[in-house]
Amino acid sequence: MKVAILGGDGYLGWATAMHLSLAGHDVTVCDNFLRRRLNAQFGSQPLFPVPDLAERAHVWRQRTKRCIAVTVGDLTDWDFTRSFIEECAPDAIIHYAELPSAPFSMANQRSSALTLHNNLGVTHNVIHAVHEVCPDAHIVKLGTMGEYGTPNIDIEEGWIEVQHKGRHERFLYPRQGGSLYHTTKIMDTDMLWFYVRAWKLRVTDLMQGPVYGMITAESSTEPALMPHFSYDAVFGTVINRFIVQAVAGIPLTVFGRGTQRRGFLNLEDTLQCVRLVMETPPPPGELRICNQFVEVFSVLDLAERVAQAAGERGLTVKIDHLDNPRMEAETHYYNPTHTTLRELGLQPHCLSTEVLTQMIDIVWSQRSHIDTSHILPTIRW
Amino acid sequence: MKVAILGGDGYLGWATAMHLSLAGHDVTVCDNFLRRRLNAQFGSQPLFPVPDLAERAHVWRQRTKRCIAVTVGDLTDWDFTRSFIEECAPDAIIHYAELPSAPFSMANQRSSALTLHNNLGVTHNVIHAVHEVCPDAHIVKLGTMGEYGTPNIDIEEGWIEVQHKGRHERFLYPRQGGSLYHTTKIMDTDMLWFYVRAWKLRVTDLMQGPVYGMITAESSTEPALMPHFSYDAVFGTVINRFIVQAVAGIPLTVFGRGTQRRGFLNLEDTLQCVRLVMETPPPPGELRICNQFVEVFSVLDLAERVAQAAGERGLTVKIDHLDNPRMEAETHYYNPTHTTLRELGLQPHCLSTEVLTQMIDIVWSQRSHIDTSHILPTIRW
Repeated sequence: MKVAILGGDGYLGWATAMHLSLAGHDVTVCDNFLRRRLNAQFGSQPLFPVPDLAERAHVWRQRTKRCIAVTVGDLTDWDFTRSFIEECAPDAIIHYAELPSAPFSMANQRSSALTLHNNLGVTHNVIHAVHEVCPDAHIVKLGTMGEYGTPNIDIEEGWIEVQHKGRHERFLYPRQGGSLYHTTKIMDTDMLWFYVRAWKLRVTDLMQGPVYGMITAESSTEPALMPHFSYDAVFGTVINRFIVQAVAGIPLTVFGRGTQRRGFLNLEDTLQCVRLVMETPPPPGELRICNQFVEVFSVLDLAERVAQAAGERGLTVKIDHLDNPRMEAETHYYNPTHTTLRELGLQPHCLSTEVLTQMIDIVWSQRSHIDTSHILPTIRW
Repeated sequence: MKVAILGGDGYLGWATAMHLSLAGHDVTVCDNFLRRRLNAQFGSQPLFPVPDLAERAHVWRQRTKRCIAVTVGDLTDWDFTRSFIEECAPDAIIHYAELPSAPFSMANQRSSALTLHNNLGVTHNVIHAVHEVCPDAHIVKLGTMGEYGTPNIDIEEGWIEVQHKGRHERFLYPRQGGSLYHTTKIMDTDMLWFYVRAWKLRVTDLMQGPVYGMITAESSTEPALMPHFSYDAVFGTVINRFIVQAVAGIPLTVFGRGTQRRGFLNLEDTLQCVRLVMETPPPPGELRICNQFVEVFSVLDLAERVAQAAGERGLTVKIDHLDNPRMEAETHYYNPTHTTLRELGLQPHCLSTEVLTQMIDIVWSQRSHIDTSHILPTIRW
């Protein structure tokens, strides 16, 4: 298939590009490097040096004889987006081109406005470009499990059948996010749902949990192909940050009691999920929603598992509880459904001690590059 | 109370300004005249010439000895918004500063992007300005009954208690709009709900039905104070358009079979509702949602009532059914709750023949100004 990956420079974007390229798809990546500029602005760098996209595509071609085409541009610009989609003529669009950080979106008015403008602006442009140029293309959009929040009932997969005063209706599952970032993902879902009905688009909206990991089959032998691995307070995800803290010999910082629970998945499973949904598009006029995670853990569970794995490598790890910088329930019901991706063929990777020690070993090899000055949270809401 | 009315030049904005001024409140209006520019762009003018805001405030002051302060500026500009709110230091903010047209939002990518950018950008700026400058101020936000769409169960007032697999949760009532414009109002509600929880704002979100009417107690004696009364296909609302069609001697254009039902209210009731909610703010941390309409009619009901009232004035009226230019269900369940505003003291005006003939008489006095070339819908979705 011909596939355009928007946000192809990011943690998920580049790994997805390699994965789909190796699976035989014809891949074009697009990015404007906004995330890199923001990393620089916050003084936080990824753990591995990340060569620019053209360089990574060059290395990929040398090693695999496969081409990943690179386009640089700003997808909030309508004229650029339309001509990019026109030239690319994709069968599928993987839309990762959003600012992914809850703390960044809560830092101040400007970062909040940038998150709102960027995330909704890109989704809006992509929808219009598909409608005008390639209405049969399948949009695979990255949402987040955080759209649901932590309601007191089971989280279903995107939709809920409501019985009310003797009548019933099927609705989008009600959403309530924990940051402006999460709220932009809710708004994306609202917008996709409207245009799917109005224009009979094909859309898959992936409600993804926090991702961990760094090794994928495609990058493991080549440092230049490693993902954009962040571990700072603004862009890092929790397991990745704990691994770096363990290696750096500083305490793992659990927010509050750490009893908040979330659904997690390995980066390798993100790649599988995205490939599986892309290869089996929904019919026109369907908004398919998949809850994309593998296992539910509490944050404290994770800290203890990382500490235990670090212990196997002779590292002594302390766990600190910080005043929770976020507005989130620490004690809550959490029972999200996630069957669609298994039915599509997902072979999940679980979070084993082996997975954690392998991550620890790789981070250990890079330990001289760890910058511990941006790990503690400074943005509170 | 000190009150800032955002979008104070519009159909509702100026009438609200006069109403609150006469009720003894200290009113400042703000507008950037975007709506006037778009009217000019579409070649559609309001029925009554509308003097500029400064002129209307001047006339108002001469007639009543009361001052309505006028500020001109673009509320999508953060620096302007923050300094405006700082200077105004309002107790309440009535937020009407949004593009109100479903057809405009569906015309093309640029009008859709402008609706998205303007509506969400202003709401976002207002929220941040209130949080930074006057966190106790009450935001009264104009939403729409169209956020709910036409679900197969009763529409509750903003919230719904869901029983699911033996557990229960109270959610924002699930929403699904019929245009990008309606979807921006849904997104506004999502955004307000997040920030109400995060920052303990006081917010009332008014789910308003289509408004009709032109006479308010404050404008009836002075042509310069009449509202911005549109009747074209892009900015006109249905009853107002039918009245103009009846006077112009052209058929009333019902979309499809006209069996779609909505909740309507008189402009005078909008003013009452807004004043009542403003004078009884919710506590900090509450998002109060009111369904703001008085009576439910089908579109065909309305056409028949207008035809009957026109008949009383000796006008013969034909009703035409057009292919529905909109994506909307024509046969649907519709039973929306609306008790909160009655409990707050709303004395509703019903749509009587007398109300309609009074509107017909006023429009008749202006019939030489009617431009029939922009009444038929040209934007389809």
